Amino acid sequence: MSELDKVLAHLDQNLDAAIERLFAFLRIPSVSTDPAYKEHCVTAAEHLKADVASIGFDASVRPTKGHPVVLGRAKHGGKRPHMLFYGHYDVQPVDPLNLWKSPPFEPRVAELAPGRKVILGRGACDDKGQLMTFVEACRAWKAVTGSLPIDLTLLIEGEEECGSIHLPAFVEANKAELKADAALVCDTGMWDRDTPAITSTLRGMVYEEVTITAADRDLHSGVFGGGAANPINVLTKILGGMKDEDGRILLPGFYDGVHEPPSQLKADWAALNLRAEEFLGQIGLSVPVGEKGRLLIEMVQSRPTFDINGIWGGYQGEGSKTVIASQASAKVSFRLVGDQDPAKISAAFEKYVRDRLPPDCKAQFTHHTNSKAISLPADSPLLTRAREALLSEWGKAPVTIGSGGSVPIVGDFKRTLGLDSLLVGFGLDDDRVHSPNEKYDLSSFHHGMRSWARILGGLAQ
Amino acid sequence: MSELDKVLAHLDQNLDAAIERLFAFLRIPSVSTDPAYKEHCVTAAEHLKADVASIGFDASVRPTKGHPVVLGRAKHGGKRPHMLFYGHYDVQPVDPLNLWKSPPFEPRVAELAPGRKVILGRGACDDKGQLMTFVEACRAWKAVTGSLPIDLTLLIEGEEECGSIHLPAFVEANKAELKADAALVCDTGMWDRDTPAITSTLRGMVYEEVTITAADRDLHSGVFGGGAANPINVLTKILGGMKDEDGRILLPGFYDGVHEPPSQLKADWAALNLRAEEFLGQIGLSVPVGEKGRLLIEMVQSRPTFDINGIWGGYQGEGSKTVIASQASAKVSFRLVGDQDPAKISAAFEKYVRDRLPPDCKAQFTHHTNSKAISLPADSPLLTRAREALLSEWGKAPVTIGSGGSVPIVGDFKRTLGLDSLLVGFGLDDDRVHSPNEKYDLSSFHHGMRSWARILGGLAQ
Repeated sequence: MSELDKVLAHLDQNLDAAIERLFAFLRIPSVSTDPAYKEHCVTAAEHLKADVASIGFDASVRPTKGHPVVLGRAKHGGKRPHMLFYGHYDVQPVDPLNLWKSPPFEPRVAELAPGRKVILGRGACDDKGQLMTFVEACRAWKAVTGSLPIDLTLLIEGEEECGSIHLPAFVEANKAELKADAALVCDTGMWDRDTPAITSTLRGMVYEEVTITAADRDLHSGVFGGGAANPINVLTKILGGMKDEDGRILLPGFYDGVHEPPSQLKADWAALNLRAEEFLGQIGLSVPVGEKGRLLIEMVQSRPTFDINGIWGGYQGEGSKTVIASQASAKVSFRLVGDQDPAKISAAFEKYVRDRLPPDCKAQFTHHTNSKAISLPADSPLLTRAREALLSEWGKAPVTIGSGGSVPIVGDFKRTLGLDSLLVGFGLDDDRVHSPNEKYDLSSFHHGMRSWARILGGLAQ
Repeated sequence: MSELDKVLAHLDQNLDAAIERLFAFLRIPSVSTDPAYKEHCVTAAEHLKADVASIGFDASVRPTKGHPVVLGRAKHGGKRPHMLFYGHYDVQPVDPLNLWKSPPFEPRVAELAPGRKVILGRGACDDKGQLMTFVEACRAWKAVTGSLPIDLTLLIEGEEECGSIHLPAFVEANKAELKADAALVCDTGMWDRDTPAITSTLRGMVYEEVTITAADRDLHSGVFGGGAANPINVLTKILGGMKDEDGRILLPGFYDGVHEPPSQLKADWAALNLRAEEFLGQIGLSVPVGEKGRLLIEMVQSRPTFDINGIWGGYQGEGSKTVIASQASAKVSFRLVGDQDPAKISAAFEKYVRDRLPPDCKAQFTHHTNSKAISLPADSPLLTRAREALLSEWGKAPVTIGSGGSVPIVGDFKRTLGLDSLLVGFGLDDDRVHSPNEKYDLSSFHHGMRSWARILGGLAQ
């Protein structure tokens, strides 16, 4: 029996204890966005620190201007690979509480369907359950072999659900300490219940806010209507004209740096057959709106987008008011892929709006977010090791997909630490993360631990 | 000395007493929109009733579901013309109070510039000052000749500043009592300080609210962006495309019933030389945005418009949120002229939106307002009499203009009572109605009374 086999057997034999440990962690209501839960966040950090210390990590709870970060170091020295593992101990708020079938911080195992057991509770998946798959894999290696197979640094933050506000500064300030060969992240999902996934690209983002001002006050449309510029009309005309009939975004230079995927990858994606009836059907839609001629999976993972995330101006109350507003505003975002340059796109958007402003109108811009898309090189050995491990564990080759959203910290790992990130996670589409009745399949938890045990073993070779 | 000359002399001699009477009326804070002032509205109504009763009107305070209406009847019988006079005793709220240079309900006369005296106070113009020009004219006729020169019904409401909500029902319920030959309204303005004006057309209005719904919930743009319909993108595209580059509104059939004015009237308007620098300059603008090739005065008075009065959807708070909203809404209005059919335009708007909805999107409509444009026939004897009277009083021919806004009650007079309305008023552009430091030029008040005295005399012939 190989060491790995022993580790896997150990995980199987100790599954109930692992579940109990996860439950203890889930019982701490570490809601990061609500100041009322501040102490619980500290409790969760201390709890986690003690847990990872018990398996040999040199662990500490490190202050930030917000919730603390848990750091753990297990460095053997020498030439072993050294990975930085990232997860988060904070969870989303639970409201509306009345929609929960059992109390969110009293975790339990339930049978969702015959043979399909799930762990119920806030954080069961996102991210306590997911990060514990990694911790349990480490624990098993330690228990069976007396040490971890590779060097590891754990970086577990407490502010992911409120935007990781203080993490980039923490990473910057602790650059030397966090240096590793690559990063491992467990906060993503599987393709489906049978098919593991490696997320190898993350879309970037440019998020802009624009306010258009016309007259220096709100006007009565009876007096000025037809003569005075209306900033809402102006804003809708400019933003409403930013895509052509085929769904292409009309900003000059927008598609510079957008690459076609290798034909094999595209064939793999086509084979996944992401169907609009299912993917969009779950939210009451049925027709993909992206660029003509693209697969739905491309539209949401590997093609850039333009969405207006918010718009406001003028009268929004009951009934009617014949006002011509002085100002109108919108928040818009572009999801980026490949080598699209966020700074260029931010500038192109500003120019696009300014070029179309009628006389008398002014535009003000706030640049909220500006992050480049991320991708793990196709020939990365990380990718090879993870593929082998996941294939062995699940009996099915993992799919290499993109994430439609950005995971900002992965950008910081790249920019600040120079690290590529391997994103492997075991969430499922129906986990209801951020919603009432969050769950994590017991299968995700169990095979997740085993998957990480295999990946750690693979990386050691 | 003719009777009219005696009446005019009486008005001149008793100007100070008239100002005192106006002050007593202005001291009553009859703010109609704020329930805290409800009793003051009743006080204002009772005050006015007593005043008009003192000059021979059979007066009453009549309840409505809101603030009461003051009715006054002075009917001699026989074949005399019978006019229905309309005004309102309610005023706008006064906030922000700190911007008033003297307390809003402590009226006083001040000298704005050498030789230019004004009455200061909330309601000094809108509409207490204006309606008192008419009451004082009646008082003078009564004092000098012992009776009024024509039959009159006064209808003075207390809810104009909150949308005249209960007045249409009141008019409908009291149709027989309100029957007259035509209506006189004193709630409009002069062309400038030297030039009287008769408002002979009022734009109508269609006011619509539309809500576009895509997914059945708010979405994360990282997960669904590029695949899922975004109702804000859809709304901006549809509404932003409703005008062409020349400012023409693209609703099919929209311009049906829009007539060109007689060339003489158009020449008169051109001669008025409404300059963008002045008219738009006062609100910080300079370039008219209406249809190419039109005079500014046409754009705001006699051409139809499309304005978005309010828009909202998605995230409007601080910072950024990568949401794709489930819904987006807008309030839009069309100002109508000539014989444009409000019902047809309302239907055309709905069809225009529905025809452009992408698959999966639904639109819901709320029809708020639907009123046809109003015009006094060019050959109306009312117009002739008023022109003669105003020319005599001001030494300058009055201009015949349109009002860019609707005065909804004028539509009710036409629809319910079959009455044309003559709109003559003495407000000036700088009166700051609805704003702090409202004023009414003493010249407007004085010559306004004399103008009405002349019009009443003219109508009696």
